[in-house]
Amino acid sequence: MAYYTPAQIGMLLAEVDTPALLLDLDAFERNLKLLNESLAGRKINVRPHAKSHKCPQIAKRQMALGAVGVCCQKVSEAEAMVDGGVPDVLIANEVVGAAKIKRLIALARRAKIAVCADNAHNISALDAAAGAAGVRLDVLVEINVGANRCGAQPGEPAFRLAQQIHQSQNLRFAGLQAYQGSAQHLRKTEERRAAIEGACDSVKRTTALLEKAGIPCERVTGAGTGSYMFEAASSVYHELQTGSYIFMDVDYSKNDWTESGIPRFEHSLFIWATVMSTPAPDRAICDAGLKASSVDSGMPRVFDTQGVEYVKASDEHGVLKVDAGVSLPLGTKLKLVPGHCDPTVNLYDHYVCVRGGKVEALWPIAARGAVL
Amino acid sequence: MAYYTPAQIGMLLAEVDTPALLLDLDAFERNLKLLNESLAGRKINVRPHAKSHKCPQIAKRQMALGAVGVCCQKVSEAEAMVDGGVPDVLIANEVVGAAKIKRLIALARRAKIAVCADNAHNISALDAAAGAAGVRLDVLVEINVGANRCGAQPGEPAFRLAQQIHQSQNLRFAGLQAYQGSAQHLRKTEERRAAIEGACDSVKRTTALLEKAGIPCERVTGAGTGSYMFEAASSVYHELQTGSYIFMDVDYSKNDWTESGIPRFEHSLFIWATVMSTPAPDRAICDAGLKASSVDSGMPRVFDTQGVEYVKASDEHGVLKVDAGVSLPLGTKLKLVPGHCDPTVNLYDHYVCVRGGKVEALWPIAARGAVL
Repeated sequence: MAYYTPAQIGMLLAEVDTPALLLDLDAFERNLKLLNESLAGRKINVRPHAKSHKCPQIAKRQMALGAVGVCCQKVSEAEAMVDGGVPDVLIANEVVGAAKIKRLIALARRAKIAVCADNAHNISALDAAAGAAGVRLDVLVEINVGANRCGAQPGEPAFRLAQQIHQSQNLRFAGLQAYQGSAQHLRKTEERRAAIEGACDSVKRTTALLEKAGIPCERVTGAGTGSYMFEAASSVYHELQTGSYIFMDVDYSKNDWTESGIPRFEHSLFIWATVMSTPAPDRAICDAGLKASSVDSGMPRVFDTQGVEYVKASDEHGVLKVDAGVSLPLGTKLKLVPGHCDPTVNLYDHYVCVRGGKVEALWPIAARGAVL
Repeated sequence: MAYYTPAQIGMLLAEVDTPALLLDLDAFERNLKLLNESLAGRKINVRPHAKSHKCPQIAKRQMALGAVGVCCQKVSEAEAMVDGGVPDVLIANEVVGAAKIKRLIALARRAKIAVCADNAHNISALDAAAGAAGVRLDVLVEINVGANRCGAQPGEPAFRLAQQIHQSQNLRFAGLQAYQGSAQHLRKTEERRAAIEGACDSVKRTTALLEKAGIPCERVTGAGTGSYMFEAASSVYHELQTGSYIFMDVDYSKNDWTESGIPRFEHSLFIWATVMSTPAPDRAICDAGLKASSVDSGMPRVFDTQGVEYVKASDEHGVLKVDAGVSLPLGTKLKLVPGHCDPTVNLYDHYVCVRGGKVEALWPIAARGAVL
């Protein structure tokens, strides 16, 4: 828990202390609706990724608009969601190691839980733990559809794992996890479309084997904010795992969306920062550095102030390049768009939710730091 | 607070869940002593920077070995230190804005507090707030000694601010903050030495003016792990602000230390990670990504396993390149050295303190997330 909270409900935005993580509620709500509108008429489920927001209040708003549940990446993240009232979580990731599997199984007694696997030994461990607890666990096979991260190879290797799950006494084969992570930030629409076509081919090679063996594959799940309309149109995917659409970050804003069918989601997430030093006419320093904004995907972008660029981050400072003629007095507060929303959210304990220039709510980031 | 803690006291290291932040107590204690030994016979104070560790338990161990207090970067960080029993904190940074200044002044009633300033308006605001609270506040002038971040220009501009503080009714001029941050990671000893010589010249230009005006300058403070022996030998600095020496990260380990007088501090801080997927002979995936390790200064380094390289981080995954012939079975636990210790520490709620393969203590990272 941060040592003190930067805001209180009812406070003016101008009074909110810095650095703080702001959520513009109007923009956020428009993004929720934009996703739904973009998918109108399509038979596809939405299961947003909670690794982006880590906040049950947001998950419940997504479900109120039709989401079937959420994805998580970690058991501890899923625990935070279930404790916060989310009844249905897919851990879109492998869970390895006795301590984590034990907690996973315990959670599956309290909520609808599914998990991914890409390894035969891990499947055996899940089966044994589920059996010992008298639980039947839903397990999806993760396949590598081009991101070259986790995931079994499509076709025979993935099929064999699905068969193992299908034959395990305490597991139920619940489908395929097929997220093409490396497609999401390809800048051109056509590059992303081609990457998802490749992913669909990989899925189809696998489902053909499952069908032949009579193993039902009830769900193919994947997709992110950069590509989801391609998966939605594919007739291969049943479920979309978009996460960042609610916030939009600088990295996603660099994508070309032309003819993608993906709407222009708005920036709703900001780092609220103060100009704390004005040592030279062309340089100012703000109080939001590496501990206030993850720079793994590039620097934050100054949102609503012209002629000011965030050029360098150190632990607690951001260096701002100030154009000639721009006045940026000491104490000026600025909105910064994070370079990458997910690891930035993970730095904070609260969203300071703002509407009409006032703080409307403080939503705890319940799964902040939930890496286990 | 993370959703569950990865370890309990007495547990074997092998049982500690992942990702976790490990502190090797033997190596940490050797680093504490190495710093002292390197400074033996020199008349210079040590005031380690608590922005690196954010942990009163560590601060108190530093003070037990002779440190005069700690530095902090944020008021909330200083609050965490004072609450944890640290009696003397220099906020080696500017504090701007009414809310923060109010807390700063309140803290100065409870502990020995000093703060930096580089702006006349800010000095007036500090004076007014101190006066309203009936407190006399110690203020140092930060000068730009080459890092081009915060800080007044040396010489006349810095002198005028010192004079203003000296003449303020409720402030006391307490010296110069002269940290050369951009020198710390210059790889060659001679480059760092030259940068600190430049910093010393900047300090001397300023202290000459102070002396002429009869304004006593009781303290020149600065230095980091990459350069501190040069400041110690300068006869210009009175106080060293080394932070990372207790941990050592990958970035610092790339410095050449030859003829610097700076000892080879050991890696004592590790991310404990599990191999959670082994999808190809040359690729394994561990469970420590961007939310477990800041990559702003490069990727973590695999510590004690040959033939394995951490090559890419995503939110919750690290991609490991595995050399031919190296076996890295699913579930293998690895120690990773963080690329940059400070923002990595800020991701965790506890140090899992290990000695002799066992968990000896869990130290809360009390100022985790203390960015305000």
